[in-house]
Amino acid sequence: MNWDLLEREKTYLVGVSGGVDSVYLLHQLHEAHFDRLIVCHFNHQLRGPQSEEDEAFVLQLAQTLNLPFESARAPIATLAQERKESVETCARHARHAFFQEMASRYDAHALLLAHHLEDQAETVLFNLCRGSHGLKGMKAISEVGPLTILRPLLNVRKQSILSSNLAYRQDASNFQSIATRNRLRLEAIPLLSEILGSDVIPKIAAAAHRTAEIDFISSFNLLDPQGRLYLPAFTGLPPALHQTAMHQFLKRVPVPNLTSIHIQQVTQLATRTTPPAQINLPGRHRARRAQKRLWIEQF
Amino acid sequence: MNWDLLEREKTYLVGVSGGVDSVYLLHQLHEAHFDRLIVCHFNHQLRGPQSEEDEAFVLQLAQTLNLPFESARAPIATLAQERKESVETCARHARHAFFQEMASRYDAHALLLAHHLEDQAETVLFNLCRGSHGLKGMKAISEVGPLTILRPLLNVRKQSILSSNLAYRQDASNFQSIATRNRLRLEAIPLLSEILGSDVIPKIAAAAHRTAEIDFISSFNLLDPQGRLYLPAFTGLPPALHQTAMHQFLKRVPVPNLTSIHIQQVTQLATRTTPPAQINLPGRHRARRAQKRLWIEQF
Repeated sequence: MNWDLLEREKTYLVGVSGGVDSVYLLHQLHEAHFDRLIVCHFNHQLRGPQSEEDEAFVLQLAQTLNLPFESARAPIATLAQERKESVETCARHARHAFFQEMASRYDAHALLLAHHLEDQAETVLFNLCRGSHGLKGMKAISEVGPLTILRPLLNVRKQSILSSNLAYRQDASNFQSIATRNRLRLEAIPLLSEILGSDVIPKIAAAAHRTAEIDFISSFNLLDPQGRLYLPAFTGLPPALHQTAMHQFLKRVPVPNLTSIHIQQVTQLATRTTPPAQINLPGRHRARRAQKRLWIEQF
Repeated sequence: MNWDLLEREKTYLVGVSGGVDSVYLLHQLHEAHFDRLIVCHFNHQLRGPQSEEDEAFVLQLAQTLNLPFESARAPIATLAQERKESVETCARHARHAFFQEMASRYDAHALLLAHHLEDQAETVLFNLCRGSHGLKGMKAISEVGPLTILRPLLNVRKQSILSSNLAYRQDASNFQSIATRNRLRLEAIPLLSEILGSDVIPKIAAAAHRTAEIDFISSFNLLDPQGRLYLPAFTGLPPALHQTAMHQFLKRVPVPNLTSIHIQQVTQLATRTTPPAQINLPGRHRARRAQKRLWIEQF
């Protein structure tokens, strides 16, 4: 659980379907004494009487935890037909409208959703196989209109969630693209893990995470017109991204036979202001720092 | 077949294992009257007497087509053990040393290899599942040391190659990571296509292609220190990449509800020097061109 995303004094909506993931998220927050939580449940009316039981279950859970409960409902199957939208798209729009309304009613800082590492790997694979989205997964922090969405469980394995032994509603969570997503989860990912001889879930998720980091870094303007690294911009990046950003910079040159030690050394050269002001790199390259810039030259 | 990569007056090495892909490539080039071709075969001695038959087959093919034939051999299985390398790594090093030597002997412009669209999708999936490589496939143009490698079949489907009805050696091609790659090809990719309800091979390959394009674009320094698009740099990109580069630029702002029409319009604004010098975009944004720069402002 990524607690760094969260602050106890802020108000959060928690999207709770009644499935094990969202129930786990809510319990974790409650146990960590987050008390400005609004339990939000959207009833898609897609599972007949079970949808009513899901809603009742979440209401009771909120009451047990002494938290405010908000719900809304819409006949998504009918609406989707009327609007000529897919069930998923129609449901997402309806849910987001509800969450937006609740966010402004409670002046909430963000909506918390319970997507986890397995969801992330599935999403990446799903997007890849549909083309056009590249290596794109879900983000721990994202914005939908004025609403901020946080996913504090995005690095958590499903197994940790299941081992919590909480009461939850079977099948209530994640009705989206059920057939496709379930088959990716239950057939494709296990087959890939078997073929590769190791669990591919953290690897797929890590690849997407790294791609998202690189996208984030390239949204900054780190270079001067001569292509040198402009150090005030570089040091303004979150420190956790310095090495990745430096690696991207050194790949541009390119410096041959780079190791992580070199990347680390040049990152230190960039972030310090004390001597030395240069270090040697493979292939007769040298990194130099001067006048708030860092560049690579050959000698 | 991507003929744009090739020029008839240049000398090319063609890597021919004797398998259907490389035999197809060689025939295509020969039929298109490329005559400065050197048929290069590396005998890995991994298939016993069949390796000898592969080599003899390629020699005869070269003679039939009246092309120079070069070969080298090494007991890769033994060498790999001695050097504590994987068979794949050891074979690649030995092959590349041979190709380098031939390239300098014949003053060849590049080595041509017969990797196709299926190989590309497999490679992407393989890299993704191993983590650390992101969405990385093979490149149509790449460099290994001083050697340029071209893959003119990278957009060609295996089915086109098989429908050519040429004589070839079964199993001679692509011994690399046989078990893993074959299972990705024969089990994982068909399962993904079945689950997604459409052929995922072109989609996976397209995602990797797009990522490679974006990487290539970001290796250029397109922005001025104020983050505006510097037009001499932008128009210096290959025209085929202008729209992708503009899309990346507009995503940075970000401009909401962008369509491909907007991207096209702003690309025209950037590449022309005649009026108009500005156009409107969604969300009260406006693209302006002046002083060899293009930028987005809100109004």
